[in-house]
Amino acid sequence: MEPAIKYRLIKKEKHTGARLGEIVTPHGTFKTPMFMPVGTQASVKTIAPEELKEMGAGIILSNTYHLWLRPGEDIVEKAGGLHKFMNWDRGVLTDSGGFQVFSLAKLRDISEEGVAFKSHLSGEKLFLSPEKAIQVENALGADIMMSFDECPPFFESYDYVKKSAERTSRWAERGLIAHQNPATQGLFGIVQGAGFEDLRRQSARDLVGMDFPGYSIGGLSVGESKGEMNRVLDFTTPMLPEDKPRYLMGVGSPDALIDGVIRGVDMFDCVLPTRIARNGTTMTSQGRLVVKNAKYSEDFRPLDPKCDCYVCKNYTRAYIRHLIKADETFGIHLTSYHNLYFLINLMHQVQDAIEQDNLLEFREAFFEEYGYNEKNTRNF
Amino acid sequence: MEPAIKYRLIKKEKHTGARLGEIVTPHGTFKTPMFMPVGTQASVKTIAPEELKEMGAGIILSNTYHLWLRPGEDIVEKAGGLHKFMNWDRGVLTDSGGFQVFSLAKLRDISEEGVAFKSHLSGEKLFLSPEKAIQVENALGADIMMSFDECPPFFESYDYVKKSAERTSRWAERGLIAHQNPATQGLFGIVQGAGFEDLRRQSARDLVGMDFPGYSIGGLSVGESKGEMNRVLDFTTPMLPEDKPRYLMGVGSPDALIDGVIRGVDMFDCVLPTRIARNGTTMTSQGRLVVKNAKYSEDFRPLDPKCDCYVCKNYTRAYIRHLIKADETFGIHLTSYHNLYFLINLMHQVQDAIEQDNLLEFREAFFEEYGYNEKNTRNF
Repeated sequence: MEPAIKYRLIKKEKHTGARLGEIVTPHGTFKTPMFMPVGTQASVKTIAPEELKEMGAGIILSNTYHLWLRPGEDIVEKAGGLHKFMNWDRGVLTDSGGFQVFSLAKLRDISEEGVAFKSHLSGEKLFLSPEKAIQVENALGADIMMSFDECPPFFESYDYVKKSAERTSRWAERGLIAHQNPATQGLFGIVQGAGFEDLRRQSARDLVGMDFPGYSIGGLSVGESKGEMNRVLDFTTPMLPEDKPRYLMGVGSPDALIDGVIRGVDMFDCVLPTRIARNGTTMTSQGRLVVKNAKYSEDFRPLDPKCDCYVCKNYTRAYIRHLIKADETFGIHLTSYHNLYFLINLMHQVQDAIEQDNLLEFREAFFEEYGYNEKNTRNF
Repeated sequence: MEPAIKYRLIKKEKHTGARLGEIVTPHGTFKTPMFMPVGTQASVKTIAPEELKEMGAGIILSNTYHLWLRPGEDIVEKAGGLHKFMNWDRGVLTDSGGFQVFSLAKLRDISEEGVAFKSHLSGEKLFLSPEKAIQVENALGADIMMSFDECPPFFESYDYVKKSAERTSRWAERGLIAHQNPATQGLFGIVQGAGFEDLRRQSARDLVGMDFPGYSIGGLSVGESKGEMNRVLDFTTPMLPEDKPRYLMGVGSPDALIDGVIRGVDMFDCVLPTRIARNGTTMTSQGRLVVKNAKYSEDFRPLDPKCDCYVCKNYTRAYIRHLIKADETFGIHLTSYHNLYFLINLMHQVQDAIEQDNLLEFREAFFEEYGYNEKNTRNF
């Protein structure tokens, strides 16, 4: 049987671990490294599918936990799957719900079998197991699915993280068995192990032994420093096979994206660009710009004079500021569009830099202009 | 001097007072009768300018009161006017702020000079006079401007309405004198007089004597019945010159639009389509459809199977319901788009019916299918 997801390595960068590649899915092919916009509830907030295509998105992420609770995976399945439900004919990736159960739901109780918890919407008692998560993901019909995992806090004890990572590996194996559609949906394993090198290595070995069509790196960007994240990537990605895609979950700041690529990561996702957009904050080539600030009230330049996106070609900081101050959602639409374009386009520039073997120079120039420095390592 | 706004009568319908025409503005020409989407704060809520063009909008309305308060007309003027500020190169009409002063602002005090009131945003004491309103409208730079008027409640006493309408005529004359840009902005006079025939006639005579390039009919759709509105139109529009456009302010329900056209109205505007959209209510050829209702949760048909708009071609009731229930603003974007298209397209159908001299038959068929009847005269 042909796997649903295929990775083709095009080129390795000379001076770093970065790789140029492409991922073939049942809904199109996209180049890597790349960034995935997040459509938690089957909609990338305020953005139309046509606009996602216009900005160059090849795949988006949607959340199993949210869709399971509302509208229910049965309704999405009856609609013909997530692609048809939301009018999106390119790739879709669903997470497993694990992260949300641990971050959103209340009163959870973890056992070998799975996790009992209360819905953050209704308070209803629910139970999610590896099998149940896969069943929901099969019904949703995304091109790429995630195994059900536990994402423990980064600074949990060694003993806890060890037990948790071992269980996550057992859950991954149960998910693989439960998976009904391997010909049309590719299931990824998720490497856990927090900041512990031997646990990360063991987790990677366990999962690689199960031969998933791709591997995710979970449990990062959960409060640890950028340096910690890079340290973990340094010893984790070399454990993963070269002929499979590598996905760093929940990472979306420009510096972390570039540093992840340098360490061999192919895929990223994060709510950051749309979340900060709703607060009037934008990413520009000169660093972040809080467009709702008073100083932009008569600034008739685009958000980013170096950007060629739809928003920067047509709207001024003054107008966008006015809309956001006046609670006009079109303002948030514009900042969301720009921020998503910024990260997608950043990854296109990174692809070019890999092609030209000058990613480190690109990084230096980008960090310099964006204003990253030793004291400002968490600035997005 | 060439007037900024020209009306060309193309054809009168044989059996009613309806007229097919076109209005030439400094930002394009559009056919009448037509409906104007409302962009209160320089944005038609959730809708991009490109989408307004796609749905066939030739002109939109924006609110002087709101823009005067925020961001301030000086900022819009510095941006190059409202068209450039909001990235819209077709027609714009601004009201005078009068209606908002009387409906939104607090503690108002009306004198011959103008109206003192408190801002609904900051509580600041403000004063709006005919001259001030025109000054703000000149700075905003819309193609069509409204005179500053008082819009009294429909059921006010005869004496009050008489005094108010007479003052509105004097205010109209002061506005005409204050108007700085007659070559690029056309100022309309507003007929008032509530439900009193002699007052409406006197108001129309006063204004027509001042030779405005167009006439608005104000003080309707403020709580009176549809029958009352039609009764007022029956004796008001015949008082207005045939070679000038007629604009019925604030009217947006499908039946009132058709009945207004039959009585010789050319232009309409209303927040209704976008306001009800935000509550999950849509207009369809079979009447209104509250898509957020539970019965649509597994309904995979478009909002209106007879509609050929972007929304109806691409999204289902089930998906839109899900988005609205999940507080995803993309859902409101879709209902807003559909409702605006519905009214713009309804006016296109009305134009065809005038062309074919069968507007009464069209009205009958439309009312029947929409579900209007004697007992349901206020259904939108």
